[in-house]
Amino acid sequence: MKVGVVGASGYTGGALLNLLFSHPEVEIEMVTSRQYQGKLVSDLHPNFRKFSKIKFENLELSKAGNCDFIFLAVPHKSAMHIVPGLLETGVKVIDLSADFRLKSLEDYEKYYGEHTCPELFKKAAYGLPELHRDEIKKAEIIACCGCMATSSVLALAPLVKAGIINTEHIICDAMMGSSGGGKKFTLASHHPERYGVIRPYKAVGHRHTAEINQELSLIANKKITVGFSAHAVNIVRGLSTTNHVYLLKPLEDKDIWKLYRDFYKNEPFIRLIKQKKGIYRLPDPKVLIGSNYCDIGFMLDQDISRLVAISALDNLVKGAAGLAVQSFNIINGFEETKGLEFPGFHPI
Amino acid sequence: MKVGVVGASGYTGGALLNLLFSHPEVEIEMVTSRQYQGKLVSDLHPNFRKFSKIKFENLELSKAGNCDFIFLAVPHKSAMHIVPGLLETGVKVIDLSADFRLKSLEDYEKYYGEHTCPELFKKAAYGLPELHRDEIKKAEIIACCGCMATSSVLALAPLVKAGIINTEHIICDAMMGSSGGGKKFTLASHHPERYGVIRPYKAVGHRHTAEINQELSLIANKKITVGFSAHAVNIVRGLSTTNHVYLLKPLEDKDIWKLYRDFYKNEPFIRLIKQKKGIYRLPDPKVLIGSNYCDIGFMLDQDISRLVAISALDNLVKGAAGLAVQSFNIINGFEETKGLEFPGFHPI
Amino acid sequence: MKVGVVGASGYTGGALLNLLFSHPEVEIEMVTSRQYQGKLVSDLHPNFRKFSKIKFENLELSKAGNCDFIFLAVPHKSAMHIVPGLLETGVKVIDLSADFRLKSLEDYEKYYGEHTCPELFKKAAYGLPELHRDEIKKAEIIACCGCMATSSVLALAPLVKAGIINTEHIICDAMMGSSGGGKKFTLASHHPERYGVIRPYKAVGHRHTAEINQELSLIANKKITVGFSAHAVNIVRGLSTTNHVYLLKPLEDKDIWKLYRDFYKNEPFIRLIKQKKGIYRLPDPKVLIGSNYCDIGFMLDQDISRLVAISALDNLVKGAAGLAVQSFNIINGFEETKGLEFPGFHPI
Amino acid sequence: MKVGVVGASGYTGGALLNLLFSHPEVEIEMVTSRQYQGKLVSDLHPNFRKFSKIKFENLELSKAGNCDFIFLAVPHKSAMHIVPGLLETGVKVIDLSADFRLKSLEDYEKYYGEHTCPELFKKAAYGLPELHRDEIKKAEIIACCGCMATSSVLALAPLVKAGIINTEHIICDAMMGSSGGGKKFTLASHHPERYGVIRPYKAVGHRHTAEINQELSLIANKKITVGFSAHAVNIVRGLSTTNHVYLLKPLEDKDIWKLYRDFYKNEPFIRLIKQKKGIYRLPDPKVLIGSNYCDIGFMLDQDISRLVAISALDNLVKGAAGLAVQSFNIINGFEETKGLEFPGFHPI
Repeated sequence: MKVGVVGASGYTGGALLNLLFSHPEVEIEMVTSRQYQGKLVSDLHPNFRKFSKIKFENLELSKAGNCDFIFLAVPHKSAMHIVPGLLETGVKVIDLSADFRLKSLEDYEKYYGEHTCPELFKKAAYGLPELHRDEIKKAEIIACCGCMATSSVLALAPLVKAGIINTEHIICDAMMGSSGGGKKFTLASHHPERYGVIRPYKAVGHRHTAEINQELSLIANKKITVGFSAHAVNIVRGLSTTNHVYLLKPLEDKDIWKLYRDFYKNEPFIRLIKQKKGIYRLPDPKVLIGSNYCDIGFMLDQDISRLVAISALDNLVKGAAGLAVQSFNIINGFEETKGLEFPGFHPI
Repeated sequence: MKVGVVGASGYTGGALLNLLFSHPEVEIEMVTSRQYQGKLVSDLHPNFRKFSKIKFENLELSKAGNCDFIFLAVPHKSAMHIVPGLLETGVKVIDLSADFRLKSLEDYEKYYGEHTCPELFKKAAYGLPELHRDEIKKAEIIACCGCMATSSVLALAPLVKAGIINTEHIICDAMMGSSGGGKKFTLASHHPERYGVIRPYKAVGHRHTAEINQELSLIANKKITVGFSAHAVNIVRGLSTTNHVYLLKPLEDKDIWKLYRDFYKNEPFIRLIKQKKGIYRLPDPKVLIGSNYCDIGFMLDQDISRLVAISALDNLVKGAAGLAVQSFNIINGFEETKGLEFPGFHPI
Repeated sequence: MKVGVVGASGYTGGALLNLLFSHPEVEIEMVTSRQYQGKLVSDLHPNFRKFSKIKFENLELSKAGNCDFIFLAVPHKSAMHIVPGLLETGVKVIDLSADFRLKSLEDYEKYYGEHTCPELFKKAAYGLPELHRDEIKKAEIIACCGCMATSSVLALAPLVKAGIINTEHIICDAMMGSSGGGKKFTLASHHPERYGVIRPYKAVGHRHTAEINQELSLIANKKITVGFSAHAVNIVRGLSTTNHVYLLKPLEDKDIWKLYRDFYKNEPFIRLIKQKKGIYRLPDPKVLIGSNYCDIGFMLDQDISRLVAISALDNLVKGAAGLAVQSFNIINGFEETKGLEFPGFHPI
Repeated sequence: MKVGVVGASGYTGGALLNLLFSHPEVEIEMVTSRQYQGKLVSDLHPNFRKFSKIKFENLELSKAGNCDFIFLAVPHKSAMHIVPGLLETGVKVIDLSADFRLKSLEDYEKYYGEHTCPELFKKAAYGLPELHRDEIKKAEIIACCGCMATSSVLALAPLVKAGIINTEHIICDAMMGSSGGGKKFTLASHHPERYGVIRPYKAVGHRHTAEINQELSLIANKKITVGFSAHAVNIVRGLSTTNHVYLLKPLEDKDIWKLYRDFYKNEPFIRLIKQKKGIYRLPDPKVLIGSNYCDIGFMLDQDISRLVAISALDNLVKGAAGLAVQSFNIINGFEETKGLEFPGFHPI
C-alpha cells in the first residue's frame, strides 16, 4: 500500500513513522511538513539517523492522490482544511487530529470552536477499533480517537454496555506524560517547570471529555456525561486513567472479570491486568512504552460498591499512531497486529 | 523545650530534624535509632554532614523522661509499644505513626490489625491543627495525621461542613512521591522499576481512607465513606489529591471561594490557589517541597455539578514533620509558624 | 536456530528476549531461571504479558545440549561455573557476563577475584563485532563486552589505531542509567535515594577499565591504561561516555571525521553524529533506547589540542543483548542487522 | 541593610529572594523586572504565594541609590549596561552575571563578545569567597563566579596551589541540571526533549572555561588551560564536576586529604566528603539542593597517578545566590553563614 504521512515532524508523526517503516505492507510514498520541507526526517527525529534518508516535502494534492492512504498528523483545526481536498483525490484519510471525532457539531463548537466542513462528519468513523471495527472498514475518514479518551472509553465501555453501573457518577482521572502536549514548547513545558510536577492542567473541561461522553452515550443509548480531570506527571510517554464508578448491585471480582473478558475476548491489543502479586498488578504505562497494548484492570471497593477501572497505554501508540495503523490493517484486511507486534520494554 | 526524636533514621525523622535544628525554641536532647545507635545522624542523613555532630542513641525511657516532648517517628505497630512507657515518664508524645489516629478500634483492626493499647485512643488528639487545634493543646498524645489524609481532609472539610455536597459520592484520587513509602527498599522501590511509573499501588483499601472517613464523618455528624485510590508517580517528595464531589445545588466559583476563604481565613499554612493564568494555577506539590503549606484549589464542572477540589503538600513536611512541629508550637503557645517559615523553592 | 537463554529473569535477559522473540531465525528452546522456574516469563517481564506464554525452567545440560546456542545472562562469577558444562554439550555459548572477557588471568583476579577455569579464556572471543568479527565467527565462547567498555572502546579505537593521540593521558567519563546495576535492589537503588543523583559511584577502579585497557592496548600494540570514572544519573536505560584525549599533532574536524568514517564505514550499528545545529548534535542515549546503535561524535578543543570523543548507547542493547544477537548473526552468516532493526523512539 | 534585586523574575533572582527574605540583616527595598513590573513576585515564583506580597517594579536609579546593595540577576551582556549607572549612585553591586568576572578583555571578547565598560574590570572582585575574601571586602563590584567554575575551581585550587599536579592535562567534566539554562524556554528545554538526556551540550568552548583558567592560572602564577566539557542531565537543580588530574609524584589518600583540609579548614561552606561506606561516599548534588555547601571529595587511581577530584553544589545557591549573599555577609562583617544556614533535605 502506498501511504503518505502529512505533518510528520511532530511527535505523533514520528511515532507513525516508527510503525510504518517496519510495516511489511507499507510503502511510504511521501512524508510532508510545511515547515521543514527539504530537510531530512532524521533531522527532526534523530532516532532515524542512518535508518532512513527520507525527506520532508510539501503537501501536494496531486502526489497525495497517488497514495492509497494518507495519515494526517496535523493539529486539530488544521486537519479540517486538508481533509476535503484529500478526499477529492480518492485517497482514504486516517486522521489523528480531533477534527472528525465528534458526531455533534454543537459538541465540536463547544470544545474546539468553529468547524469548516461538518458535513463530512458522517463520512468519518470514530477510530477506536475495539468499538467501531465495522464502520472503520467502510469509512472514508478514520478519526482516530484521543489518547485519554481511548483509555477511559476502553475501561468503561464493558461496564456501560453491561448496564451494571450508575451512569450519573462516573469520574475519570487521567495522568499524562509530556509528549501528549506535542512539540510546541512553552513555559509550561520548560524542563525546570515541567519536571517533577503533579499538575492538574485540565481539572475540568478537557476536550477528550466530549469523546468519552459521545462513546459511552452511544453504548448506553442514553446521554452520559462523565467527570474528567487531567494531570501532567513526570514522564514523557504514556498515560493512565483511573475511572471510578458505582455498581448498581453487588458484584464480585469474578463477575467483573468475566464481563471484561467476554467483551474483549478477541481483541489482540487489550490485556486484562489484575494480579494478586508483583509490582505490576494493575496497568502501568511504564511497561507499555512503544507498544500498542491498552492494559485494563480493576479493583472493587465493596464498602461503597465502587469499582475502580484502570487503564494505561502509550499515548503516541495505542493513543495515536498505533490506533491509526490498526485501523489501516482493518481496512485492508491485513492481520490486525501487522506492524504492531512490539511488546514494550522492561525495564525502561 | 527539650525534645527527643525517636526513630530518627527514617525519612520523616530526617524531615523532623530539618525543622527542629532550626527551631529557636527547641533543644534536641536525644535522637534515637535502635539500628544505628552510635552512628552520626549525618551518616544516615548526609545533608547534615558538618552541620550537626549529633549521634543516634538507643531509646532509654529515663532519658526520654528528661525531655518535654518526644517526637515519635517509628512505623505504625511499633509506636503502640513505645507510647505507654513514654507517657508514664510524663513526657508529651507527638506521634507520626498511624497507631493513635483512629478513634475506633474496629477501624484500626480492619486496616492495621491488632492494637495493644486501644485504651489510650482517648488520650490522643488527631493531629490536624486546622481541625483540632483545641484538642491538640490538651492531649497527651498528638497523633499526626497521614499525609494523604491531610490533603484530602483539608480539601473536603469546608465542603462537608457547609453541607453543600453529595456525601454519598466522594472520590479522592491521590498521586504520591516515593519518599512516602519510607526507607525500606524493595523491588517495588528499585529505581529501574519505580522510575517513570504511574502505578495504582493502592486502588482500594488504602489505610488513610479510614482517617478521611473518620474526620469527614465527624464534621458531617453522619457516616461518610469516601472512595480513595492512591497512585505512585515519578517524584520523591510531594503528593497531590484530586477530590471529586457533586454539589447538591448550583453554586458558582465565588461561592466556593468564599466558603474556603471563610473556613481557612486564619490558617497560616493553608493557601487557596486558583489562578486564571500561569502554569501554577492550581496546587502542585512541586512548589511545596520543604514547606509546611497545604495548597488548596478547585474547579467547577457545571455540566454535572461536579466540584474538583485539589490539594497538594510535601508529604514529609505538612504531611508529617511539619504537622508535628505545628502541633508542638500550638501546645506551647508559640507562634504557630515558628520554625516552619520556609516557603519552598522555585524551580526545583 | 534453537537457542536457550540462561538467567532470563534479569534485565539483560529481558532485553535478550525482546530481541529473540522477534528474530526470524530464532526458535527459543528454553528460558531458564533457578529462582523463578515454573513461573511465566511475563510474571517477571510484564511487557510480555499476553505476548508470550513461555515459562522459566531450571537449567538442564541435557536440554541445553539440544540448543545450537546458549545465551548466558547470569552474573559474573556465576558464568564460569556454567560455561564448561555447556561447552561439553557442544553448544556455542554467548556469554553476557564478564567472566571470559579478559585475556589476562592477572587482570581478572585484580578486578573480579578468583577464576575457576581460566584455561577457557583462549576459547573466547571478545564480543565486540566492530573489532573482533573474525574471531567471533570461530570462537566457542563469545564474551560480550561490558556496556561502558563498548562505548569507550568504540569511541577511542579509531584514534588509537591511527596513532594520533597521546596514549598516556586518556580520560573516560561515563554516565549511566540505573538498569546497569541489574535487578538486585539495595538502598543505593531505592528510588528516594537514586532519583535525581549525579553519583560518582565508581570514580576509580571500575571493572570495565580492564576491558578498555585490554582492547586499546591490543590495537596500539603497547600497554595503554586509561583513567575511567563512572557516574550514576537519573535515567533507567542508556549510557554515555565522554572520552578526553590529546592530539599528538594539530588536526582539524575533517581529519578526525574522515578517520572515524573510514574506520566504521561498513559498520551497520555505528552512527557518526556531529551536527552543527539541532538539539541532538552529539550522541545522547535518550534517542537510542531499544536500538542497537552506538552513536559516536567528537569535538576539538584547539586551545589545548584536546579531542572529546563522545559515545552513547543503550546499555541493555548495544551494551548487552544487542551485542549478543549481533554476534549470533555473524556466527551464523545471517544479515548482521537481523532482529536488530529497531531504530529507537523519539521522544521517549 | 537595604537591598534591591534587579532582574528578580529569573531563577537566580528567585533563589536570591529565598535567601534574602529570611536574612535577618536584610530589608528588601525593591525587586525589579522590566517585563513583569506591577505583578506580584509570587506570580512568577509561586513558592512565595501568601509568603510575600512584594511586587516587581521597574528599575529606577534614584531608588536603587537608596539601597546599600544591589543584587544584579540579569543575563550577561545586560549587566554591563546597568552597572555603571548603579555605581554612580554609590551603591555596591553584587553581580550574578558573567560581565565582570574576567580580568582580561581579550578573554571576555573571545567567550562573550563586545564589552561596553571594560574599564570597570579593575573595580570588580571575583566573587568566590574561598579565594578572594579580602578583595570582596573592598571591591565596588562583586562578580559572583559561574556555577560550574565555582565547582571546578574549588575542587582544583588546593591541588594547583600545592604544586602537586601536572597542569598541562587537567580535565573537568561537568553534569548540570536544567535550571542552569535559565528561564528562557526553547526546544532544547522542552520536557519531552530534555527529560532523560545525557546531552553533551557544550563539549568544548564553554564560557566557564575562561573563569577556571583565570583562577587556576592566578594561583599557579602561570598560564593554565583546562579541558572543560559540560553535560545536561535529568535534574533541575544541582551540578557536579569530575576533575581529572595527574599527580607529579606519588601521593596517598591521607596526603591529599590533609592538603584539602588545610586549605579549607576555616571555610564554613566547604565540606570534604570521602567516606568508605554508604551511598553518599562522594559529593552528589542531590543532597545539596537549597544549601550553600560545596562538597568536595576525591579518589586516587594509583595505576596512572590520576586524582579524581569531585565537587558538587546547588547551581542556584552556592553557584549563584548563595555566593552573592556570602559575599554580602563578608562585606558587611556579618557572620558569613548568616541567612545561609539551610543544610539541604534528605531525601528529595
